[in-house]
Amino acid sequence: MTPRAPSGEPRVITVGAGALGEALDAQAVRRTEVGWRPPMPGTAGDLARVLADPRRVRANETAVGRLLSARPLLVGVRPAREALELAEGSFLHAGPPITWERASGPMRGALIGAMLLEGLATGPEDAERRLARGRVRLSPCHGRGAVGPMAGVVSPSMWVFEVRDAEHGGTACCPLNEGLGKVLRYGAYGPEVLRRLRWMGEVLGPVLRDALERTGPLDLVALIAQALQMGDELHNRNRAATSLLLRELAPGVVDASPGHAADVLRFVAGNDHFFLNAGMAACKVSADAAGNVPGSTVVVAMARNGTDFGLRVSGLGDRWFTGPAGVPDGLYLGAYGPADANPDIGDSTITETAGLGGFAMAAAPAIVRFVGGDVAEATAATRSMYEITLAEHPAYQIPGLGFRGTPVGVDVTLVARTGLLPIVNTGIAGRVAGTGQVGAGLVSPPASAFTAALAALAEAADRGGPGPPEAGGAGGPAGADGRRRTPHFDEL
Amino acid sequence: MTPRAPSGEPRVITVGAGALGEALDAQAVRRTEVGWRPPMPGTAGDLARVLADPRRVRANETAVGRLLSARPLLVGVRPAREALELAEGSFLHAGPPITWERASGPMRGALIGAMLLEGLATGPEDAERRLARGRVRLSPCHGRGAVGPMAGVVSPSMWVFEVRDAEHGGTACCPLNEGLGKVLRYGAYGPEVLRRLRWMGEVLGPVLRDALERTGPLDLVALIAQALQMGDELHNRNRAATSLLLRELAPGVVDASPGHAADVLRFVAGNDHFFLNAGMAACKVSADAAGNVPGSTVVVAMARNGTDFGLRVSGLGDRWFTGPAGVPDGLYLGAYGPADANPDIGDSTITETAGLGGFAMAAAPAIVRFVGGDVAEATAATRSMYEITLAEHPAYQIPGLGFRGTPVGVDVTLVARTGLLPIVNTGIAGRVAGTGQVGAGLVSPPASAFTAALAALAEAADRGGPGPPEAGGAGGPAGADGRRRTPHFDEL
Repeated sequence: MTPRAPSGEPRVITVGAGALGEALDAQAVRRTEVGWRPPMPGTAGDLARVLADPRRVRANETAVGRLLSARPLLVGVRPAREALELAEGSFLHAGPPITWERASGPMRGALIGAMLLEGLATGPEDAERRLARGRVRLSPCHGRGAVGPMAGVVSPSMWVFEVRDAEHGGTACCPLNEGLGKVLRYGAYGPEVLRRLRWMGEVLGPVLRDALERTGPLDLVALIAQALQMGDELHNRNRAATSLLLRELAPGVVDASPGHAADVLRFVAGNDHFFLNAGMAACKVSADAAGNVPGSTVVVAMARNGTDFGLRVSGLGDRWFTGPAGVPDGLYLGAYGPADANPDIGDSTITETAGLGGFAMAAAPAIVRFVGGDVAEATAATRSMYEITLAEHPAYQIPGLGFRGTPVGVDVTLVARTGLLPIVNTGIAGRVAGTGQVGAGLVSPPASAFTAALAALAEAADRGGPGPPEAGGAGGPAGADGRRRTPHFDEL
Repeated sequence: MTPRAPSGEPRVITVGAGALGEALDAQAVRRTEVGWRPPMPGTAGDLARVLADPRRVRANETAVGRLLSARPLLVGVRPAREALELAEGSFLHAGPPITWERASGPMRGALIGAMLLEGLATGPEDAERRLARGRVRLSPCHGRGAVGPMAGVVSPSMWVFEVRDAEHGGTACCPLNEGLGKVLRYGAYGPEVLRRLRWMGEVLGPVLRDALERTGPLDLVALIAQALQMGDELHNRNRAATSLLLRELAPGVVDASPGHAADVLRFVAGNDHFFLNAGMAACKVSADAAGNVPGSTVVVAMARNGTDFGLRVSGLGDRWFTGPAGVPDGLYLGAYGPADANPDIGDSTITETAGLGGFAMAAAPAIVRFVGGDVAEATAATRSMYEITLAEHPAYQIPGLGFRGTPVGVDVTLVARTGLLPIVNTGIAGRVAGTGQVGAGLVSPPASAFTAALAALAEAADRGGPGPPEAGGAGGPAGADGRRRTPHFDEL
């Protein structure tokens, strides 16, 4: 608030509450407004400890550098049995770990459907009984190098996109998208759901596999970058990406299977979300590249199982930090309303983790017709995410913001310091098993997951610091000069 | 400048030069700025006469109403010989009428190519000789219910998109897009150009025809509306529209010709501009619906032949009003520069005539990477076009402007009153025959074409007014109460 020099025009910066700024406006004083918010309550101590971790800055540079330099290529389409080495009787699911007892309606519905698809039950009731008795091993997709939208249930005979990171060597998978309406991922398990999944295993998967072998690996960064310039945000709007994918694969589909090509092309063309799953695998493999950097406070996974929201942090390995999943606020299909909505579900928040989805809404003004709000709000959503992220994606650019890169690399300390939570846009599943999709909207993750992660980072900082980054590590020995250090307040 | 009421806060409107407004800003007085520009020099008299034409307002309502209510459907793909009843030795070309003598390099190159394609010459020199001797009948596409991009040369064996207006019954055609690089429409006529055109006649055209017969007519308004939400402006950016078209047609292409399907899909997928020609036919059939309304000052065609720019006005029938074609200002490919550029060429300005292209650039921020400028300028371009148009398109909406419809229906009187010329974005042809495309950019039509049209409208107003709209008409008898009437200055 002090003029920079005693002579010349004063330069005024206003922060916080608006009254002062408005008073200056009334006096026609030029000013620059700076957003400021109080940190999340109770986080000051942990924040100070984490910010003091001498590994943090370089660790985050490393983690974000890896996230941004990942080069996901679509390299294959294969059965989950092979691609994920998924044994019979083992299912994957979205989000952090969950048991049958705590599973929501759509998660239960999808698990029932997978039991029927795999021939592990004689009917829905039999499936429920077996699932309740723990006859199937459930584990999160994220722990197996996979992601799944909505319920995210993956069973051995489902076919998956396989994406390889040509820069860092990782691999990630995501099941093929079933389309809209009554589909397994939204918890439906009727005969048409199973029939479609069988066709996907018998026809769609093999034809796409053969087509991709002909076209060669497909550069997903280039495709996503194009789609962002065509109004997709790559989570709830994938119309451009799906069209571009089909355009790339169509000639190979014909060459691979003249007999099935028309059916396959019709199936893909009939579903604007078909690309989502390939994009999710691209985001997963990129986020995985950023994982396991000791001292890094970068979020490398956000996922929901329909009951809990969970996140993982680069510097904290495979630990999940969870909180209750919220109910999205958005637009409902037909006669459905908020009372029909299940809490937030799915691994598709990997898109936000990698700088897409809710973070890229400014690229996709038409998304507001699907998730609610108006165009100004969509732009504001993206702009606000720059406050909690460490980088702007060099390839994922938003034309409407002058080709600025999307905000990417959520930093737990920035979330705690600003109180701003990641903005997620998402489909809404019906809460009753078997219903399907009831709407789409926006949702915030629970703050408690971030404060829990911050507390764990503070502990790890105390243990890991202050040796050189190479020497330290989550769970490594405590620094030689004791556990507490002076926080770098200049970084606050 | 007078406060609206003696009490309360004054409401200030500033017009014209900025000094007063800036002085008020310095005093922190709230104001509303209103754009105002002087009319084009020398048009005051004609403007007064045209604005006084009692038919004008209703005639323009009719013309614009027809333009907006057109329902162009892609109904067929056929040889020009059939679709346009184009006889041997008859060629169509872009823009207003032109002779070989006055034709530019790319127009000559395309005509030479058409001679070779049709087997009417033994080689390029023979073709030139025959063309110079007038052995071929040349006439504008626009006069035959057609449009052609760049040189716009259509010869009988070329295949065209056929578009029908389901609302008003008109039909318009545009040749299939050849792709990029060395292509006939940019004036190239080498062996690879002719080979490609022959393949298009033997394979591409028939396969697309058969595919379209299977899928049924394709709703081009819906497709264009979607593409606008996907970052196309439908003149120089057709990536989304091309992808959507391919997505619609691909299954039918496979069904129609399993043997050629892969080649056809590869050809379409390899050219982001493939949709342009279908879109141009959609715009042409819509603009034609608005034509021939006596008293209407709405522009129903803008087109360039590489030498002249020409426009047609609804109330003035088939007359062309011309001026010299300008050279676009934009970005050049490779080592090309402004010295290589031909003056503006092509019927593709039918897109601007129908509210797309330069008028819809706010929907396509990524276009600036192709035609130059920045995103703010692209948005400003669209905004400025609302000043010279009579309507906002109900289906063609721009998400980034809060789903405002594109500006549509250029009014000659508004152009004259504001001095604002339509903004056209366009490809740039090399000026030497055989070169091909050298760049893309923005260009303004010559003001003289608009002032000439205004003068003709003034004459027609004097002849046609002031009887009731039903009785009057361009070329009809003069009004009973004399030739001059008091202008409606309230309309100025």
